[in-house]
Amino acid sequence: MKPPIVLLAPLHGPTQRELESLYDVHPLYSAADPAGLLAQLAPRCDIAVTAGARGMEAAIMKQLPQLKLVACFGVGVDAVDVAHAHAHGIAVTNTPDVLTEDVADLALALLLGAVRRIPQGDRFVREGHWLKGGMSLTRSLQGNRVGIIGLGRIGAAIASRCAAFNTELAYFGPRRKTDSPYRYFDDIVSMAQWADVMIAACPGGEATRGIVSRAALSALGPEGLFVNISRGSVVDQPAMIELLAGGQLGAAALDVFDREPQVPQALMVLDNVVLHPHQGSATHPTRAAMGRLVLDNVAAYVAGRPLVTPV
Amino acid sequence: MKPPIVLLAPLHGPTQRELESLYDVHPLYSAADPAGLLAQLAPRCDIAVTAGARGMEAAIMKQLPQLKLVACFGVGVDAVDVAHAHAHGIAVTNTPDVLTEDVADLALALLLGAVRRIPQGDRFVREGHWLKGGMSLTRSLQGNRVGIIGLGRIGAAIASRCAAFNTELAYFGPRRKTDSPYRYFDDIVSMAQWADVMIAACPGGEATRGIVSRAALSALGPEGLFVNISRGSVVDQPAMIELLAGGQLGAAALDVFDREPQVPQALMVLDNVVLHPHQGSATHPTRAAMGRLVLDNVAAYVAGRPLVTPV
Repeated sequence: MKPPIVLLAPLHGPTQRELESLYDVHPLYSAADPAGLLAQLAPRCDIAVTAGARGMEAAIMKQLPQLKLVACFGVGVDAVDVAHAHAHGIAVTNTPDVLTEDVADLALALLLGAVRRIPQGDRFVREGHWLKGGMSLTRSLQGNRVGIIGLGRIGAAIASRCAAFNTELAYFGPRRKTDSPYRYFDDIVSMAQWADVMIAACPGGEATRGIVSRAALSALGPEGLFVNISRGSVVDQPAMIELLAGGQLGAAALDVFDREPQVPQALMVLDNVVLHPHQGSATHPTRAAMGRLVLDNVAAYVAGRPLVTPV
Repeated sequence: MKPPIVLLAPLHGPTQRELESLYDVHPLYSAADPAGLLAQLAPRCDIAVTAGARGMEAAIMKQLPQLKLVACFGVGVDAVDVAHAHAHGIAVTNTPDVLTEDVADLALALLLGAVRRIPQGDRFVREGHWLKGGMSLTRSLQGNRVGIIGLGRIGAAIASRCAAFNTELAYFGPRRKTDSPYRYFDDIVSMAQWADVMIAACPGGEATRGIVSRAALSALGPEGLFVNISRGSVVDQPAMIELLAGGQLGAAALDVFDREPQVPQALMVLDNVVLHPHQGSATHPTRAAMGRLVLDNVAAYVAGRPLVTPV
């Protein structure tokens, strides 16, 4: 008999099909009676699989008393109640490393896209404005000071890319990295005053909620650019929109939003922002590698082997 | 009395204002009677200033028998009849080096923009599609083979940026560069067969007309991406559009076009292209530096000093 798994969110197609071929998968997200499904699974289901954006709250864990593993498709587990899980002997796994390079690539795509106004240029040509005269000059990335919020795996991969563009680098984080060649700021507003560009690459969750504050964005200023490939929660989104609309913040390039996929209309109408629908890791090879890691973690648990990537 | 200059195209505003303050500038592009203006300048005008996109054809040089200098705002002088100029003792100057880094940045902005579908993502969010479901997965740049057409100053700057994205590099050009670590192809179709991405960074003009042929684009194939920051003339544009529309070429990201600012409607309607209105060097600092070089070349000529950047 295949081991039962409760699935909290749809996964990358090939991953989900392989999971379904190996296990008895019960999708909670499409269940007609979710409470009934949980009650039915409660006596025997010890594995949950979810996606980073969905996570798993304590309330659902409590309904599955046999639960021993929450395998998360994604590196950010801010939507999983890890503290509750660990306090109750439930392991959590994520999919680190395999998505680092693609997320860093997307950060640079957004950074360059905002600096050189790539979506705006595409609209300019398609709407026929070029026939009436050239597009305005833009800023240059050359010689810019780039401040990275969170010099973890993804932040470091962003920094090494930025270095190829003749930029000056610094980072903000909870502690100085002794092995980093970049300037360290222990205060985000000070880094924003120094920087031309700030890129958020830190984890989400309560520890980083709102750290890109109104004061930080104001310090970045009318010529400043804010790039976010982390989580919408790290920035004071209403303040950001107000400053962008009023010209007190120069531009923004955003892959993530508060309460996505909702994007406020006030943000949608701005010409000085590049918007992207949370695609940091959304490439075919990376999603396949993330899926492989989810499957490997589940297989390791079922076989009684050590988990591959526990949180 | 200020030396007379014939100006064939409007320049970067601050540059043109400085030129007008130092010289007796006659704009040919806005003259009510261009032939009359040339006839009036013929006996005494020895300096012409133009822009790369406008250039200066032999027919106009012939109407200015005193002409000794054509100072071009831009690095590409394919629209200047350099052979005619040199055969008649007319020096030509351009603005190399100062624009290399910004043009290479734009190449990466277009490359990443096409691979990760940045303008398409921006449209996806603004048009509200995200509320109905996620955007499709895209390809990844990681591990891609990137073939650069023309490993000159700009091509080399593009290559060093690409290297930061875990790509494998090669180049095509008239000759092998002994100091280059990258693989060399002496045939563009062979490079296209090898490559996932091809980036045109060669000069325009007759020597490179149509070198990105139908055969080369077909060899690049349904998964291939073509990026052009060189000149529209280097590619067989009708074949490119046909292959893009038919799916035999995967995608394109284009800053330059045949007969720009005209862009064929058949190209404008495609979702697998990123279009940009020839903005390679169009940043404030670079345009200012290009203007400085034009002014310095004219001043050197007037003072009888060696030209700063002769072609």
